[in-house]
Formats: sequence, C-alpha cells, structure tokens
Amino acid sequence: MSCQDRGLLYGDGLFETLLVVDGAPRRWRQHMQRLKEGCSRLGIGGVEEAKLRADAEALCTNKARAVLKIVITRGAGGRGYRPSAQSDPTRIVQIHPYPEYSSQYWSRGVKVRVCQHRLGANPALAGIKHLNRLEQVLARSEWDEPDVAEGLMLDSGENVVEGTMTNVFVVKNKRLYTPDLTSCGVKGIVRDGVIDIAENLGVSSAETELSLDDVRQADEIFLTNSLIGIWPVMQLERCTYGPGLITQQVAEKLAPWNNGWIS
Amino acid sequence: MSCQDRGLLYGDGLFETLLVVDGAPRRWRQHMQRLKEGCSRLGIGGVEEAKLRADAEALCTNKARAVLKIVITRGAGGRGYRPSAQSDPTRIVQIHPYPEYSSQYWSRGVKVRVCQHRLGANPALAGIKHLNRLEQVLARSEWDEPDVAEGLMLDSGENVVEGTMTNVFVVKNKRLYTPDLTSCGVKGIVRDGVIDIAENLGVSSAETELSLDDVRQADEIFLTNSLIGIWPVMQLERCTYGPGLITQQVAEKLAPWNNGWIS
Repeated sequence: MSCQDRGLLYGDGLFETLLVVDGAPRRWRQHMQRLKEGCSRLGIGGVEEAKLRADAEALCTNKARAVLKIVITRGAGGRGYRPSAQSDPTRIVQIHPYPEYSSQYWSRGVKVRVCQHRLGANPALAGIKHLNRLEQVLARSEWDEPDVAEGLMLDSGENVVEGTMTNVFVVKNKRLYTPDLTSCGVKGIVRDGVIDIAENLGVSSAETELSLDDVRQADEIFLTNSLIGIWPVMQLERCTYGPGLITQQVAEKLAPWNNGWIS
Repeated sequence: MSCQDRGLLYGDGLFETLLVVDGAPRRWRQHMQRLKEGCSRLGIGGVEEAKLRADAEALCTNKARAVLKIVITRGAGGRGYRPSAQSDPTRIVQIHPYPEYSSQYWSRGVKVRVCQHRLGANPALAGIKHLNRLEQVLARSEWDEPDVAEGLMLDSGENVVEGTMTNVFVVKNKRLYTPDLTSCGVKGIVRDGVIDIAENLGVSSAETELSLDDVRQADEIFLTNSLIGIWPVMQLERCTYGPGLITQQVAEKLAPWNNGWIS
C-alpha cells in the first residue's frame, strides 16, 4: 500500500468485518449498506460493490469459518487534509482466521469490565465504521486478563455507549434497551438485526441513554457483533447475571439468520 | 507498507510535519519531544530518534525549502484493537515540496472562515499529533474558495479550539490569548514558541477558553504552524483586521528562531 494513502495518513476511510461460514460472507447486503452510508458521510465516491464481491468470493472459497475484512480509503492525493476533487478510493480485502474464542463465551457468557477511556462526542462520525479507532485501541489496552472478554465504553456524560468491539443490549422488566448512538459509537449490523428480531418476538425495544447503573441493574445483558453474533454477559465487574430468557430467545432467532449470502 | 499496519487499520500512530530550509529540518528537538510525548501517551515504544535523524538528513540534503513528514505507527500485529505486547513500530520518513502559498498570506494576512464540524472532547488524545484526523478532513472539506486559507474549528461548547492545520492566537488590550487544549486540539511547536516569545517581549499570555465572539472582537488574530510560522488574519468572515503590532513583533522574533537544527 502507498505511504501516501490517506487511510494511513489520516484514518480517512472505512472498514467492515464480516463473518465467513461455509465459503460465504454473512450479511453481505447489510455490510455493504453501512459501508455506502459511511462513504456518503465522508464523501468518498467510486466504490464498486461488484469488485468487492468478486474479491470476497475469491478469498472465501473453501473457508469453513473465517473473517473477511474490507477496508476502503479515500486513496492518495489531495493537499493536506483537503481531499482531492477526484475520488480514487483504495480497496483492500483480506481474509483472516476466525479468532479463538472459548465456546463458553456463547454457552455460559462472558466477563466484562468498564473502561476508563471515555468516548468523545462526534455526531458527524457516529454510527459509521471509520478508520479513526484510537479510542478503541486505548480502551482495549486497559486490561490484560485473558478471562475478561470485553470492556464497556462510556461517553463524557457517563452513559454506556458500546463495548470496544461490540454493541450492548440490556433487558429490564422484559423490555430490551440499547444505547442511542447519535453522538458516538458504531451501529453494528447484528445490533440492527437484534432490534428487528425483538420486534418479531413481541419484545419492545428502545434506543436510549443508559447509565452504567442502568446496565448494572439490568435483568440480562448481552453483547453483539458480526463475528460473535451474541454473547451473554455473566459478569460485569462485581455483578453477576444468570442465563437470560430473552437473550436466549433472541440468540436462537439470530442463528438461522446467519446463513447464506443475504442480499 | 503492510496492509496489516495498525496505522492504516486504526490510525494507531503519530506524525510530525517539519519545515526544511537550506538542507535542514527546523525545530527538530521540539518535534521529537512532541513525538515522544505522543508515543508515551499511546504506549508505542522502540522509536529510535537516531534512525529518524539519519533518514531526515539523507532526505533533506540540498533541499532549499521543503516539508519533512515523519509517521510513526504501532506497526502490524496485535489481536483486533488490542496492541501486541511487543512493540515493533513502523517508521516512515518522506520529503514533500513546500506548499505554494501566496506571499501575501504573510505580508497582508489571510482570510479565514468558521467550520461547521465540531471537535469531540478527548483529553487522552488532546495535544498530541495522532493519525485520527477525520475531523480535520471533514472540516477542510467544507470549503473550496481558494482565497480562504484556513477554517476555525470549535468544540461542542462553541469555543474556538484551533484551525484545521494551525493554532490560533488573539490579541486583546495588548494581551495574548490562545485556546486551552486540554480537551481537544493539537499543541503546535510554533504555538509553544510564540508563548515563549511573548514572555520575552513582556506581553502577558494565557491559554484559556475563547468563544467565537472573543475571537471576532479581538484587536489582532494570527495563526501558527511549523510550515508557515505566523500568518496574520486579515478577515474572519465579515470582520476585518488591520496589521497588528503585537503580531508583527512576535513574527519578527520568530523568524531567526527558524534557523538551523535546533537541538
């Protein structure tokens, strides 16, 4: 890759991380939709989905279970921070091994901590999966304990926003809540899927402000992302949580949705 | 450069932009000091100044006037956002032509606008020159007018923080003020130099909150960075400013300080 690429120089781009199962990336359409939304927000034109799909198909063949990573940058050029008027984006498509997570993360749940690093408010960048990820890097650097799977990140108003690599849901009195992401955070593909599933299950859900205490006092907590689907939270610092009925119902509905190129 | 480099994937790194005059980069020691502070804040170890200096010397030879760019990233490796325990940073040193700025930017001053994009608060990242620069890219994308040299960026509290590529100073009643940068913004090398110069001139200076109206109502406004030194502001949207005495005094003192490898 060029050392003049704006992806390197400014983090001027976007990425997607897709689950690959049985030779095919999952939730392709949804990932492409978020990528396009990100390109539109950053003003990056000229990304060709057909080329991404051809790259993806070639890389995913014969992969039973893997991770497909797509990076789009604004490419080289422009003067300083100012982008060039002509868009010539860089396309990077990589295949990686699926991470070695304990199967108990799904069956029993995970231990979670609370990160010290606070997310800055940035409505113009909220929701999209851009390449400016130092906040997540700093938050993920806060702990070494191998049995702590994730850390919750708060905003400057002390509301919970997300995990370093996951979205967060809580169940309280049989209702589902997830943090509002208009000021910061990444809108996960599975996050959207869970909201749809809840509706189909007749479980009311809301995107709202959630304090750390709201999360601690929840009946159930679970985490989502494209690679893991759903991990129940069994421990948040000193608080413990048993297996949750709604978490289980949502996870069961999510499982078949994982199959095939959904497009 | 590797497509696995964390500089590309997460903006996980730092940069410095140095003025080169008569075959030598200026203010080397100060740039290295900020780079080290940035590495310390991000937990990037193993950067060798001697190698950077050797690269710089080789690139700068025979350059009458140019721009030296240094990029340090955390390198490849680690699992997701989590950095690897072993630090193996990437070192990139580039030489670029000096930008073609009109000489009137120094002699008469520049026109400046106010950007719509607001800077997010991020104390852990404030001050250092890290690679997460989407905010500056978005702000600099807001205008095309070739006669507008810079845009002021405000925080979510509507206080002025900096320009997209410069620091901001104002003079009011013969005192010098510049925005406090504890929540966001980059601490420029020339910004520090100007504060020292003001002290030597007997001009009191303060790092403080400055509203847009404070800036508009100032007697003098000027911008600083390592490449330009000082540009007076002659116009901020509808407000105009004449040549400023303190701006001129500071600029005169800054000029000789530009000479030689200061180390």
